[in-house]
Amino acid sequence: MPDAPRTVRVLIWNEHLHEVENETVRALYPAGIHGALAEAFEEVGGFEVGTATLNEPDHGITPARLQETDVLLWWGHKAHDRVSDAAAEAVQEAVLSGMGLVVLHSGHLSKPFRRLLGTHGSLRWREADEKERLWNLRPDHPILEGVPDQVTLEQEEMYGERFDVPDPDELLMISWFQGGEVFRSLCTWQRGYGSVVYFRPGHETYPTYHHPDVRRIVVQAGRWAAARLRRDARDSPNADALEPVPNPGKEHIL
Amino acid sequence: MPDAPRTVRVLIWNEHLHEVENETVRALYPAGIHGALAEAFEEVGGFEVGTATLNEPDHGITPARLQETDVLLWWGHKAHDRVSDAAAEAVQEAVLSGMGLVVLHSGHLSKPFRRLLGTHGSLRWREADEKERLWNLRPDHPILEGVPDQVTLEQEEMYGERFDVPDPDELLMISWFQGGEVFRSLCTWQRGYGSVVYFRPGHETYPTYHHPDVRRIVVQAGRWAAARLRRDARDSPNADALEPVPNPGKEHIL
Amino acid sequence: MPDAPRTVRVLIWNEHLHEVENETVRALYPAGIHGALAEAFEEVGGFEVGTATLNEPDHGITPARLQETDVLLWWGHKAHDRVSDAAAEAVQEAVLSGMGLVVLHSGHLSKPFRRLLGTHGSLRWREADEKERLWNLRPDHPILEGVPDQVTLEQEEMYGERFDVPDPDELLMISWFQGGEVFRSLCTWQRGYGSVVYFRPGHETYPTYHHPDVRRIVVQAGRWAAARLRRDARDSPNADALEPVPNPGKEHIL
Amino acid sequence: MPDAPRTVRVLIWNEHLHEVENETVRALYPAGIHGALAEAFEEVGGFEVGTATLNEPDHGITPARLQETDVLLWWGHKAHDRVSDAAAEAVQEAVLSGMGLVVLHSGHLSKPFRRLLGTHGSLRWREADEKERLWNLRPDHPILEGVPDQVTLEQEEMYGERFDVPDPDELLMISWFQGGEVFRSLCTWQRGYGSVVYFRPGHETYPTYHHPDVRRIVVQAGRWAAARLRRDARDSPNADALEPVPNPGKEHIL
Repeated sequence: MPDAPRTVRVLIWNEHLHEVENETVRALYPAGIHGALAEAFEEVGGFEVGTATLNEPDHGITPARLQETDVLLWWGHKAHDRVSDAAAEAVQEAVLSGMGLVVLHSGHLSKPFRRLLGTHGSLRWREADEKERLWNLRPDHPILEGVPDQVTLEQEEMYGERFDVPDPDELLMISWFQGGEVFRSLCTWQRGYGSVVYFRPGHETYPTYHHPDVRRIVVQAGRWAAARLRRDARDSPNADALEPVPNPGKEHIL
Repeated sequence: MPDAPRTVRVLIWNEHLHEVENETVRALYPAGIHGALAEAFEEVGGFEVGTATLNEPDHGITPARLQETDVLLWWGHKAHDRVSDAAAEAVQEAVLSGMGLVVLHSGHLSKPFRRLLGTHGSLRWREADEKERLWNLRPDHPILEGVPDQVTLEQEEMYGERFDVPDPDELLMISWFQGGEVFRSLCTWQRGYGSVVYFRPGHETYPTYHHPDVRRIVVQAGRWAAARLRRDARDSPNADALEPVPNPGKEHIL
Repeated sequence: MPDAPRTVRVLIWNEHLHEVENETVRALYPAGIHGALAEAFEEVGGFEVGTATLNEPDHGITPARLQETDVLLWWGHKAHDRVSDAAAEAVQEAVLSGMGLVVLHSGHLSKPFRRLLGTHGSLRWREADEKERLWNLRPDHPILEGVPDQVTLEQEEMYGERFDVPDPDELLMISWFQGGEVFRSLCTWQRGYGSVVYFRPGHETYPTYHHPDVRRIVVQAGRWAAARLRRDARDSPNADALEPVPNPGKEHIL
Repeated sequence: MPDAPRTVRVLIWNEHLHEVENETVRALYPAGIHGALAEAFEEVGGFEVGTATLNEPDHGITPARLQETDVLLWWGHKAHDRVSDAAAEAVQEAVLSGMGLVVLHSGHLSKPFRRLLGTHGSLRWREADEKERLWNLRPDHPILEGVPDQVTLEQEEMYGERFDVPDPDELLMISWFQGGEVFRSLCTWQRGYGSVVYFRPGHETYPTYHHPDVRRIVVQAGRWAAARLRRDARDSPNADALEPVPNPGKEHIL
């Protein structure tokens, strides 16, 4: 028999500024956005959930902690440049060596996301309390198990194309916005030994992370992206030949 | 009638250290690797060719010069870390805003390539004077026009999988090596408004860039990747709605 | 100097039933949809344009004619099953050997499209005179040269996801519809040595093919997909080894 | 807690002619190739395994049986054209509605594979008792869990590029052959709601399906491709608008 599904170690990173500074946001997310997301994972079960925030030492994401993390969630918005380059590099390195990364909403401009994709992550946006409809292109995908053909969010911030990212390896959902725009809202990319997921909804002034389908997608993205292997991918080893070659002991000039 | 094909502005960047320091390399490339490549473009015609090297001020690649470059070629090997971060960022920004980039051989570890792809670019390697056979998967592709089904290089450095790069948008050639390895040798990726090409052969101690099929591929890669548009992709504009929305003038809290 | 751009041989296939049977459609397309499309190519120039329709012998698309065609356009709607299997196979074979194919609108259910993609091509649809907005994801792509960031069609038939096709190699435009749906509207796939393009708009009761941006996209799709090579891809040849093998003359048992 | 992993229903289809007609093959696979493969699945556990062969009524693959199959394996070689079009269509339809399909070795020319991919599946081949080395590009992928960086088969039939298939969604292994060729040996494609895997090794005159790494890959491919959803994808429904449209009750002219 195959093994029972292992417990996935989730680390939820949240900037955690809006909830402290703004009453509307605090009312929606009294335990912080990270608290609402942690609750979603715990409801489902099978996860060991931790959280980390910007103002902790090292933003709570040392290489050692990432080494013991199967998948990292990332929510940030107004303080991307306060995340240290060292922390961003640690996240990038962890993904390339196998850790999963699920980037949420305004994380499209975060340092780890931009470093891993190599692009700006720019897009058009608008805050107008408008309706978003997310269309499900892949109901067979593990991230979308049990998610209906279309999910409606009554009020959300608008993100519109062109989204400056590499073509996703998998395009799973496309959003329709009341104001006339479309957006590639649920995407995956493989980078090194790790998986990166981007999921669009989640503006801090709306109750988006209390929506059952949104929670389901976030949790299933976490499970899907979780590391299946950890291996350093940095070195370029000098390799012995498997078959005879003319000059096996040749010296490499530099 | 469609316009006549425009002249493509090519800039060939070469580290230019081996040719100065090593007699074998200098004998193979008396005008430098950049000189041999420039000659290949000039033979075909339709290009305006410039060159730049590591030891020039700003390595010869200021943002202003890149703005007037349609496609940049990059050959570097032993001094990747002597390329300034500012120069690497300027190349990345130029590609995202439309410039083409053709990365050659040991450029797989160069700063611009790694920044654009987000991965390490690591691989297995060996220098043993062995045979390489490049198999043509896409004889219909503009980069491979007129290239036979298989190209043999009698002696080359070996590069073997796993090559730590994102899945290419197009995989055009795969190499077979005498010592038992394989490698994805000709790949393209779209990044922002620009195209990135990686072409494997070209170790400095072999006459690879004098091989007619290699020259043909390099030149056609340059033409194919050349910018068709230049546009800044950095900004995320706040966009007015095209259709009625509930709260068009809503203030954005920060 | 590179050669001047060659003349592209375009063949426009149209079912040509609606224009004959329905007054509204005839008023919009007095020379047939194929006539309107032919005019678009001729205005631009650089093409040799022919047309063919369902009721011609062999539907006007014999293997011999396809052999002399660089790119075939396909518009069909109500009589997909009256296209012979032999004709559909001839189109498939021509594409695999290098011919381009641009499938328009209701051609998503045509035999050649379904044979080449292997899927049903099914989708959701509605005819309600609603607005369509096509968002441009790749302004740098040759098919979208000069096309604005967004194209509005005041009235069109709606096509909505899930569109049952393989993930496109390139996703170039996504449509927004007034009634709440989205759609992958401009897609490309490589099949064999040929290119397949699908472009969504073009319902027969609207003046869509008179819209300048639609015409521009259709013509540029035709130029982009045009064959760069013709080569039979059917055979699986028994190949002599390039390097020594243990038993080169071994007999193949059957 | 997430559910325990469900039992996967595997159906192994084998042409089963070589084993009957040829003594060498029979000695290698006394229970048939399907018998060897069934044994591999049963050793691991967690599967409900059935088999079917060409000479059974309906080749053992009725639509009803496929409806109760999560993943179908396919081995065929010399009698592809004896598989009925109805059976090939039933397999295609089952995949599009969610069933997984793992095509082995000479199945690259089978009817179901060609129908689903839309291409010829042609390639170069040679039978010369030569060595094959399969390089692992994705050690993090579930199909390659526990598989080393390189798998050596001492004797196999050679398959070489160009392999006439659409670009795989995932390229997992590339083969090196002693005689000088390379091949994309382990590939996946999504079609409709189902997954297609192609795995190259398995010529009938070699003990390939007794090799532990080959068996591991076949079994893990079966588990990975197994249906996660069954849904008919044939219909193109006329859909009511979710938002107000100008003419919701408009009649569709035909």
